[in-house]
Amino acid sequence: MEPVYVIKIGGNIIDDAQKLAAFLEAFAALPGKKVLVHGGGKLATRIGDALGIPQQLVDGRRITDPETLKVVTMVYAGYINKNIVAGLYAAGCPAIGLSGTDGDAIRAHKRAAKGAVDYGFAGDVDAVNLDLLSTQLDSGLSVVLAPITHDGNGQLLNTNADTIAQETAKALAARFDVHLVYSFEKSGVLRDADDDASLIASITPASYDQLKTDGSVHSGMIPKLDNAFAALRSGVREVLIGKAEDLPQLVQGRTGTRIVHE
Amino acid sequence: MEPVYVIKIGGNIIDDAQKLAAFLEAFAALPGKKVLVHGGGKLATRIGDALGIPQQLVDGRRITDPETLKVVTMVYAGYINKNIVAGLYAAGCPAIGLSGTDGDAIRAHKRAAKGAVDYGFAGDVDAVNLDLLSTQLDSGLSVVLAPITHDGNGQLLNTNADTIAQETAKALAARFDVHLVYSFEKSGVLRDADDDASLIASITPASYDQLKTDGSVHSGMIPKLDNAFAALRSGVREVLIGKAEDLPQLVQGRTGTRIVHE
Repeated sequence: MEPVYVIKIGGNIIDDAQKLAAFLEAFAALPGKKVLVHGGGKLATRIGDALGIPQQLVDGRRITDPETLKVVTMVYAGYINKNIVAGLYAAGCPAIGLSGTDGDAIRAHKRAAKGAVDYGFAGDVDAVNLDLLSTQLDSGLSVVLAPITHDGNGQLLNTNADTIAQETAKALAARFDVHLVYSFEKSGVLRDADDDASLIASITPASYDQLKTDGSVHSGMIPKLDNAFAALRSGVREVLIGKAEDLPQLVQGRTGTRIVHE
Repeated sequence: MEPVYVIKIGGNIIDDAQKLAAFLEAFAALPGKKVLVHGGGKLATRIGDALGIPQQLVDGRRITDPETLKVVTMVYAGYINKNIVAGLYAAGCPAIGLSGTDGDAIRAHKRAAKGAVDYGFAGDVDAVNLDLLSTQLDSGLSVVLAPITHDGNGQLLNTNADTIAQETAKALAARFDVHLVYSFEKSGVLRDADDDASLIASITPASYDQLKTDGSVHSGMIPKLDNAFAALRSGVREVLIGKAEDLPQLVQGRTGTRIVHE
């Protein structure tokens, strides 16, 4: 099967114009089919603050009230998505920016309230439109996905960008050889979060059990790693986690953490 | 050739949630291939005001400084575009929302300053990507165009939505039988702007000269009508101007003003 790279870019890169431009150059230079998934960085919070809309986070997740939904739709699907696409063209990479409602790319449902916590207009993914994404990729366009989905009944929903990347990778695995890349500010999965030299270069299901047992994996990484192994079980070839600035080396598995079947 | 409807929706419809929902229902019910072009309504001005960004208009055109460009990109390409697409899915109409940078849909250049007036990041259209739009339409999607374009060098540009509709219609005319529809709050081209009964039902090049000579056409309509005739000369079949609320009758030429070759 033909390879496809699904690359999630972390918020701190989006917040830094120079880092973003360098990342887009590196993304543009990657050969073959590719999907870029972005979140929002701090701009949504800044715009929300400027508009007098208080932002609430519970366990790192934004509570999406109607006004916050308006802000994230504007910032993620508008400002950030379109600037990334324009930047990719400037770097010589034809691309199309989509939210989950465009072409029904990503259908979701509103997350049910969990005890005392009502996440508001937060969306949990039901389906990724493989045909739509394949059509765009086959026509030579890279796809840039904003983490705004819809429920099919006219309701937009705010969805976690890591989840968008994971679900997109899983859906594309039915037709492509998918490499899922999480690029962010760290060098990869670290034994010591403050020490880049403590990088774990490779994790398999067997070694993951051992790393959890001996406490070598930071608890904050466990949900991400659980998701990575879930992606592998759904047919994704490998999951790569590492520094956005090292994208060319990262996609080649020469740096960062490589999460593989065996 | 297969018919395509290119329908521009006026800002006052976008500002009214009920009118917009009714319009989207009517648009969804139209058979065949169709493109919806929208501007921004008053929301961009409201958001700009809330963010403390003063809006300047010269001859009805917004002066697009860098902060205003950010606002219109967020509001037009983000909030309005994605809500329209989600609304179309709710009405049973598969659609994809694009700005001019997506798939290089609409390439433009920054308008040169004209004497003392610098329009800022205002874009004048150079090219509409017929292949991209055809691919989306052929795959069964209606296309929803936001009036944000790009220059290919990473710069987004704010572009007049009437112009986007006209240029899109002209480009599609190479492959389709194009009907260009301007839907707004008036019944069509009126001899007396305040009297719907003064509607001019049909205008041809010959009758247009007569209408201009005898002063029957309001001076404010002349640029719009000049553009309509320019579209006809570029291969567009007809231009229809009328009330958004009468969309089904308007596209059938049963109401509004019909501008035709003869």
